[in-house]
Amino acid sequence: MPFENLGTPSLLLDKDVLEHNCKIMQERVQEAGIKLRPHMKTAKAIEAYHLATEGGFDGITVSTLTEADFFANGGVTDILYAVGIVPSKLSEAQRIQDKGVKLSLITDNLDVILALDDEALRLETTFPILIEIDSGGRRGGVLPDSKDLIAIGKALKNSKRLSLEGVLTHAGHSYHYTTPEEITEIAEQERLAVVEAAKRLRDAGYSCPIVSAGSTPTAVFAKSYEGLTEIRPGVYMFGDVDQMFIGACRSNEIAASVLASVIGHNKAANRILIDAGGLALSKDMSASEFSSHTGYGLVCDLTGKVLEELYVESVHQEHGLLASVSGDLPYATLPVGSRVRILPIHVCMTVAAYEQYEVHSSDGELLAKWDRVNRW
Amino acid sequence: MPFENLGTPSLLLDKDVLEHNCKIMQERVQEAGIKLRPHMKTAKAIEAYHLATEGGFDGITVSTLTEADFFANGGVTDILYAVGIVPSKLSEAQRIQDKGVKLSLITDNLDVILALDDEALRLETTFPILIEIDSGGRRGGVLPDSKDLIAIGKALKNSKRLSLEGVLTHAGHSYHYTTPEEITEIAEQERLAVVEAAKRLRDAGYSCPIVSAGSTPTAVFAKSYEGLTEIRPGVYMFGDVDQMFIGACRSNEIAASVLASVIGHNKAANRILIDAGGLALSKDMSASEFSSHTGYGLVCDLTGKVLEELYVESVHQEHGLLASVSGDLPYATLPVGSRVRILPIHVCMTVAAYEQYEVHSSDGELLAKWDRVNRW
Repeated sequence: MPFENLGTPSLLLDKDVLEHNCKIMQERVQEAGIKLRPHMKTAKAIEAYHLATEGGFDGITVSTLTEADFFANGGVTDILYAVGIVPSKLSEAQRIQDKGVKLSLITDNLDVILALDDEALRLETTFPILIEIDSGGRRGGVLPDSKDLIAIGKALKNSKRLSLEGVLTHAGHSYHYTTPEEITEIAEQERLAVVEAAKRLRDAGYSCPIVSAGSTPTAVFAKSYEGLTEIRPGVYMFGDVDQMFIGACRSNEIAASVLASVIGHNKAANRILIDAGGLALSKDMSASEFSSHTGYGLVCDLTGKVLEELYVESVHQEHGLLASVSGDLPYATLPVGSRVRILPIHVCMTVAAYEQYEVHSSDGELLAKWDRVNRW
Repeated sequence: MPFENLGTPSLLLDKDVLEHNCKIMQERVQEAGIKLRPHMKTAKAIEAYHLATEGGFDGITVSTLTEADFFANGGVTDILYAVGIVPSKLSEAQRIQDKGVKLSLITDNLDVILALDDEALRLETTFPILIEIDSGGRRGGVLPDSKDLIAIGKALKNSKRLSLEGVLTHAGHSYHYTTPEEITEIAEQERLAVVEAAKRLRDAGYSCPIVSAGSTPTAVFAKSYEGLTEIRPGVYMFGDVDQMFIGACRSNEIAASVLASVIGHNKAANRILIDAGGLALSKDMSASEFSSHTGYGLVCDLTGKVLEELYVESVHQEHGLLASVSGDLPYATLPVGSRVRILPIHVCMTVAAYEQYEVHSSDGELLAKWDRVNRW
């Protein structure tokens, strides 16, 4: 039996699938003539970084300074921390920078620029800054046609401690569409937003070397990368059920899964119980906007073959309850004590519950354990 | 400023509130004349165990064998692992038992009893077993009037390696009601289910020393504990927004909160951004069944005062977006770089993202760091 020496729940990672996913994205960016700066917020493992950057540019994107520190310790020297910086975090950023890293920071706020400038003076250091642009995601960022953009560019020009490194955006709203046409249109909005912002800054006399966009869906479905210097997808390395519905991967391109044991049959309620619940799978239900039969994960046998109709219908802290679309549950073939693999709905959330990947080949051979960096 | 030396996001725990919550539950069970076997799946900290059991019985409930091991190392000697056991986990259970712990296991399945008996023989050990009863939660458990109950009792009687320790149930469905009357009725269903199961076993000639029920809502609203020997609530120690809507705590009885920094103002989208997102808060939205304005957490100032109308409307991995019921966001009083505290929706999920509590007094003085045990 594959994985028989692992406890449950455990986090599995299929290295063959990961390599395939990394290779496809590398080919895509190399054809487009731009850089891939992979977002490591999903994988958070140094071995995944090496696979994702193999044969290409070796800079990365991170979502926390703890991640930045982890990858700096792993030898990465060009890191973009793509969450709005605040002055209280600058001393930690300096500590990472002192490891020999070019650590780029982002903001969308003029007051922050002024406060960062003071703090950088106090710390006797300098930082490259990218201005965050809102391309429709309505999270962070100034609008590309806003007055604030030029005001921030001017403040950076005037600063002796901060330099304008470029502009970046993330079309997070691409996660809510399922046709290539819709996502291609969002990719184009994303590209035009950040290209327009760069043009406005340059027209105002400010240099803007980096023009950075990217999410996995828009990276997959973009028709043009013109004016961009790099893209920053991340979840493409692993894939998940949500990305499958979006069309950004197929079920056999999902690299991470959770190994779980069947721990009960509740025939009165018509549910099979597993020992992977809300903590082992996360409570993310993103794919429910696309299907009412995905819940907290899809179910595979130990070879990774999807067991059609089965899904994790509900979760408690350490319990998952499997239901079937037709109502017929395979009690006989999934006795208590047997094992299944669960394909995650939103893999970034699921893998965060684990400190290590149990790395295996597609034929079920365990190859290694890879460490993840979690928390803050 | 309180907590100014902590990074964000950080997990805060108000020790005064925790002590208050523990004391109230101890008084309740002592008045009822039963034991409190607190479920440590929420707190997962040895210091919280000491507060929860102070002046009472010192046995506990856990949700993973890793938790059992952690508390065994902390000196706890009576532990109930309240998730269905499977034979592959028995050798780990034995390792914990060998630390001098009475480790009770649960199942609801006759085939598992037979397989556990074989495995216990192979391991040359014995285990006390409780039979799980479904009192309406429709998760694990046999129905109290089922034939399986007596068959399992008989199999345990016949086993030389396993002993029938009792019956237990958990009315998880109590989490979906908001009036004391409804929850009192569920508490009575919960009690009667397990008392009936114990009576049937005893009538069949099997001893059944432990009769165990309990969830936080049913513990708070039960009118009778007759026939029970113990209850097993857990979330009552910390409280959360979900329990507040259920009526099991008030907002000033919520002990855990997440310290977060304001990292952006998106005035075009009318949102304040914080650096506590889906990983720092969890993606649990349990309270949304009670209110459309709770999202992923309620917002407090640094003293713990609830900022009325504000809530975490949406989350990305490392971003939380604050919205206001009225639409008026306090941009002026929450500038970028300022800090807030977020009250968790479902605290068991939120605290699991952290390795440590930053323990403080109600007046904001940091007192200690407490370690949590996470994962499996």
